[in-house]
Order: sequence, then structure tokens, then C-alpha cells
Amino acid sequence: MSRQTLTFRQHSSEPAKVARLHQENGQSHEDQLGPEDVHIRFLAAPINPQDLMVVAGKYPVQPEHRHAGEPIPGYDGVARIERVGSAVSVLAPGNHVVPRAHGLGTWRSHATVPAPSLLRVSATLDPIAASLLKMGCGPAYLLLNSGARELRPGDWVVLNAATGVIAQMTIQFAKLRGCHTISVIRDRDDVDSARQQLRALGADTVVTESELAAPGAVASLAEGKRIKLALDAVFGESGERLAALLSPGATYVNYGSLGGAVGASIPLTQELLFWKQITFKNFRLSQALSQYSEPEQEDLLGYFADLFEKGSLQTPAVDRVAWEAGPRLEEVVLQALDDASGQSKRCVGARKKVFHFS
Amino acid sequence: MSRQTLTFRQHSSEPAKVARLHQENGQSHEDQLGPEDVHIRFLAAPINPQDLMVVAGKYPVQPEHRHAGEPIPGYDGVARIERVGSAVSVLAPGNHVVPRAHGLGTWRSHATVPAPSLLRVSATLDPIAASLLKMGCGPAYLLLNSGARELRPGDWVVLNAATGVIAQMTIQFAKLRGCHTISVIRDRDDVDSARQQLRALGADTVVTESELAAPGAVASLAEGKRIKLALDAVFGESGERLAALLSPGATYVNYGSLGGAVGASIPLTQELLFWKQITFKNFRLSQALSQYSEPEQEDLLGYFADLFEKGSLQTPAVDRVAWEAGPRLEEVVLQALDDASGQSKRCVGARKKVFHFS
Repeated sequence: MSRQTLTFRQHSSEPAKVARLHQENGQSHEDQLGPEDVHIRFLAAPINPQDLMVVAGKYPVQPEHRHAGEPIPGYDGVARIERVGSAVSVLAPGNHVVPRAHGLGTWRSHATVPAPSLLRVSATLDPIAASLLKMGCGPAYLLLNSGARELRPGDWVVLNAATGVIAQMTIQFAKLRGCHTISVIRDRDDVDSARQQLRALGADTVVTESELAAPGAVASLAEGKRIKLALDAVFGESGERLAALLSPGATYVNYGSLGGAVGASIPLTQELLFWKQITFKNFRLSQALSQYSEPEQEDLLGYFADLFEKGSLQTPAVDRVAWEAGPRLEEVVLQALDDASGQSKRCVGARKKVFHFS
Repeated sequence: MSRQTLTFRQHSSEPAKVARLHQENGQSHEDQLGPEDVHIRFLAAPINPQDLMVVAGKYPVQPEHRHAGEPIPGYDGVARIERVGSAVSVLAPGNHVVPRAHGLGTWRSHATVPAPSLLRVSATLDPIAASLLKMGCGPAYLLLNSGARELRPGDWVVLNAATGVIAQMTIQFAKLRGCHTISVIRDRDDVDSARQQLRALGADTVVTESELAAPGAVASLAEGKRIKLALDAVFGESGERLAALLSPGATYVNYGSLGGAVGASIPLTQELLFWKQITFKNFRLSQALSQYSEPEQEDLLGYFADLFEKGSLQTPAVDRVAWEAGPRLEEVVLQALDDASGQSKRCVGARKKVFHFS
């Protein structure tokens, strides 16, 4: 059996410089299952901004597993159960599972982990969708509940960085609730295809940042719409334009600063605060999820999985990075990490990378 | 019997120019009670910013009563029942009452109004306190509930314009909940006496705007405190300093713009939004009260009245304007209106004026 495991030597914001891939053949001591353990084979694992923060040493939850003495990063993903320990009754070979909490280490082909650290999901679910249930669908779903008042059918949501995975899922969840979306995308070469792709997901209106910045554009776009929620992943001027689109009593929620946070700000005016009664706040997934008990979190992921299986949600568009054992794998993996960390430095339009194990 | 009634000819932001006082002796047709009516004599009626907005034509609820064909302003106050109509059973002569809703017209010595437009309060309550139950105590109490999380004993609240009636009540309500307050007052001639007066109400820390603006003052004042709520009645730089004092997870609430709203703004940074997770919002009394059913509103005012009577709340410091029938009354009343409308134009330290009927 061939197994591959990614580890990192030290903290760095340039993950490709500190990560290394270990490739081994044959049995290992990890294959000796304790009674409560399960042995899993990964199917897909995304590279999330959070993972890069872990490698950079800027995330509070540390990796729980090590290989060759070094921590294994990757906190999200989906795996298939290969074997189970003698005392494991809730999981069986062939089951598909996702990590229950942060820290599991998903950037590896195989792992032996305690059964309670895993949560079962449907085995017929597309692995890419499954790997994004928690950090792709979770934030999207919970962001839509973050307004000062609940969204009602016919309400509009405006969001930027709209080609991102969270935004792609938000557009779809909004539609499921009978709500409409205005998707703001950054100016780029492939505006037409981005527009088409978002419309195919159910986006009602797609505009570029510069279209929205044109004189009168905000007013004419807002006219006649109840725009009750702005979901801002960019901050600065882009966030300011989202806030300007909002109807009275709406909520502006920030959940990222792709436009750069240092020195940027949004001017809070009495027009926004008093006259329009807009509430301004931030969203953190960990905080929002902490309002859900563990059984509720399981049901939440199960609900997402059902929607994918029914065809009510489409798997978001991502870049699949083929994880295939062999001499080229380290180069492929490190390149993906490099690209992903570049993405957080604002390479407009770069898609989320997901390791797809073969 | 002598009766006096204030009316206004037309809308104006200079109330003294459009208001006039009618003084009459003897009976009037208003003394003829319908079966559901009561005849009342006012004891005290404050001049609230809202009243000035009514006169200026900038408030949505219009006066319900007229005299000599002109609307009677004044929406807050307390009165004693003199006589009741044949079908009135819930009120009796000697009862003290406050208006149930906006629009009653309280700037007059006597009135005949439908019994259901009044709400009974304790007759032993200080009339100044009674006249401030709704628009003085109401906002103060409800502002303390406007945070993203409930205030807990030991939490701190920071507020500016702290010599205002709402702030004086907020300081006291905070103390009743086991919370501490930082009161920010504007720079003025009588800083020492203002400080003393607020401390006598239970204020923990009183600082002037310029003390707080000094380098390092915000950090040293915030140190070691859970400052969970900022109540900003000034906006602009003063509001910005309040927000800077807040602890993680706190809420900034704006409920006024004494510093001027036009052109002013508070820069919303990622430091405040993401790192400190501060929520920014506005407070409107009508909106907050609408969450209370009518019986709940009655119980709320009754609760305030009880606290005053028990000595748990002190009547806030106000300027009593003696309303005494006679040739000088019109001058006194118009002067008070002029001063009060000047107060809203930032005459620092001017106290709320309350008509005190004799």
C-alpha cells in the first residue's frame, strides 16, 4: 500500500516553503488499530484560508496528528472508512465521514484516527461537495441567519467576492429560502463566464465592482428591492458599496477582507445608522457554530448533504488538484499550496483548490 | 378657573416664533365631559427633543388635540384627574396619569381627553419623575438591553452626553443591574459639579471628552474592564472614542447626534469589526417599545415608578420652568422653548426643561 502525508516543518505564511510530502509503501505502525480507532482513506480535502492560517501559526486550534514528528495540516475533507477497531459500532467499512472538529489533518491519503473524531455522511454524496459541507456550506447557511431580522421570501441579499465557494453556496441557499441575490464580482478577464456560472447557480443579478461604482448604479440597482442583508468578504470600498445598497432595517455583515484590512475602513454615517437603521457586524464560523449543539451540527451537515443529493444544491465550481502517488505529487501539492496562498493575496478569480485523491 | 394652553401656528425649528399661549378664565365647552372623558390638570410636562421635532414638522405622529384651531404640542407629562365622565370606571378623581401614546398635547394646564388615552401611575410619585417615566426612563432602560449580548453583573457601560436625563437614568439602571459606568461629559465650565452630580447618582468614572482624547487615555481607562456597551448620543469623534473603549464582543449603540450628523462619520475598521467583533447599531425608542405589548408597557412604567418610590432611582436633575397663570407666563414658556431648541444646537450642559405647573 502506498500512503502519502503532508507535514510542515515550521510556521510560515508561505506554505510551499515549509511543507513536505512523505510517500511510503507497505504497512506502518499506524495500521495497527486500537479498539476505538478507524482507518480511513481520504477522497477529497479542500485548501481553506483557515488551513493556511494554521500553517502560518495564526490559528488557535493546532493539528492533533503528527507524522515523522511534524504536524499534519488540513482540517476539512471527506474520507472512506477502510477498517474499524474491535470496539467501534457506529461506523463500518464503506461509510463516508467528515471531521467532527478542527485539527484532524486531512492532507494525507490515509489516516488512523479515533472513531469519535468523525461524523458519518452519505456515501453517495459527491466527494467534492462532501469535503465542503462544513467550511463551504456551513458559513453560507449561517451567514443568511446573521441579519438583525430573519430573511423573508422576496428579500434580497447582496454579496461580493461572489465567485468564492461560500458565495456560490450563499446564492443557492438564498434561492432555497425564496430570496434573491445581487452578486458583485471583481473586474477580471472572464467576466462573462463568471456571470454565466453564477446565473446557472441561481444568481438573479451579477454586477462587477466597477459597474456598481458607476454614478447612479447603487440607486438604480436598489430601487424597488428589499435588500436586507449585505455579506461582505472584501471590505473597504467594496463593502461600502454593499452597505449603500441596503434597505432600511437591514444588516451589513463582514466575513473577510480580501480587499486588505490594513488602513481600510467603512465610514459609518448617520444616514446608515439613524436614517436607515443598518446594523454592522462581523461573522465568525466558530462563533456561529457554537450556537449549535453537536447533534444540531450533525443534523445541519446532514441537511446540506440531503440537499446536494436531491439536486437542490449544486457542487460549487472548484479547481480539482489530482492527488496521485508518484514522483510528481510533491510538486503538484506544493504548487497548489503556493497558488492558494497567493489567492489570499488577491489573485482575482482563482478558484478554491481541492485535493482529489485517486 | 384659569386655563392656559400652548399651540403653534405653523411648523418651525424655532418653536418660540410659532408658538403662542392662550390664557382663559371661566368655564369652556371642554369642561363638558362626554361619558368616556376625563378632565385633568397637568402637574409636570418636559420639553423633549421629540416635541421640538413635532413643532418643526419632523415627527411622524401629529398632535391629536387642538385649541382655537391650532395643534397643541407636548407629548410627555403627568396630570391629576379632576373629574371623570359617567362611564369611566378605571380612573377616579385624584388619580395621577401619564399619556398612553404620543400626541396627547401636554403643554397646557388643563385638558379633557378620553379615559383610554391615559395610564394611571402612583399619585405619591414625584411629578418630575413621573413626567419622565416614558421618554426619560424608557430609553435608558431599553438602551441597556440593546447589546448583542445581555449585560452581566460586573460589565461596564460607557456613555457620553452623560448629564442628559437619559444618561442620568442609564447610570442608575446600570447600577441596579450590578454594572458599572464610564460617563463622558463634554468640556464645560462646571466640570467639577457635573462630576459630583453624576457620582451622586452612582457613576463610577466620569471623564471629559478632552481627558478621553488625551494620548493613551482610552487604553488605560479600558484596561481590566469588560466594557460591553457604548451608548452614543453625540456621534462623530466622541462616538469613535466610545467605540475604541469597547471590549471584544461588545455593542456600540447610537441614539443621538448632538455633535452634529451632517458630514460626520465613525470609521468602521477591521480592528473593530473582525478583531473585536463589535456590533454597530442605532436605537429608536418607538422601535424598542413596539417589542412590548401594551400591558407590558404599562408594567414597565409601573416598575420605574416603584423604583422611584422605593428610592432605588433618583429623580434626574432638570430645570424646572414654573408654569404660573399670569401676564408673564407666555414670555417664560417661549423662553424655555427657545432655550430648549438651543440645547439641541449644542449649548453644552443645558439641562432638560420641565414645565412645572402650579
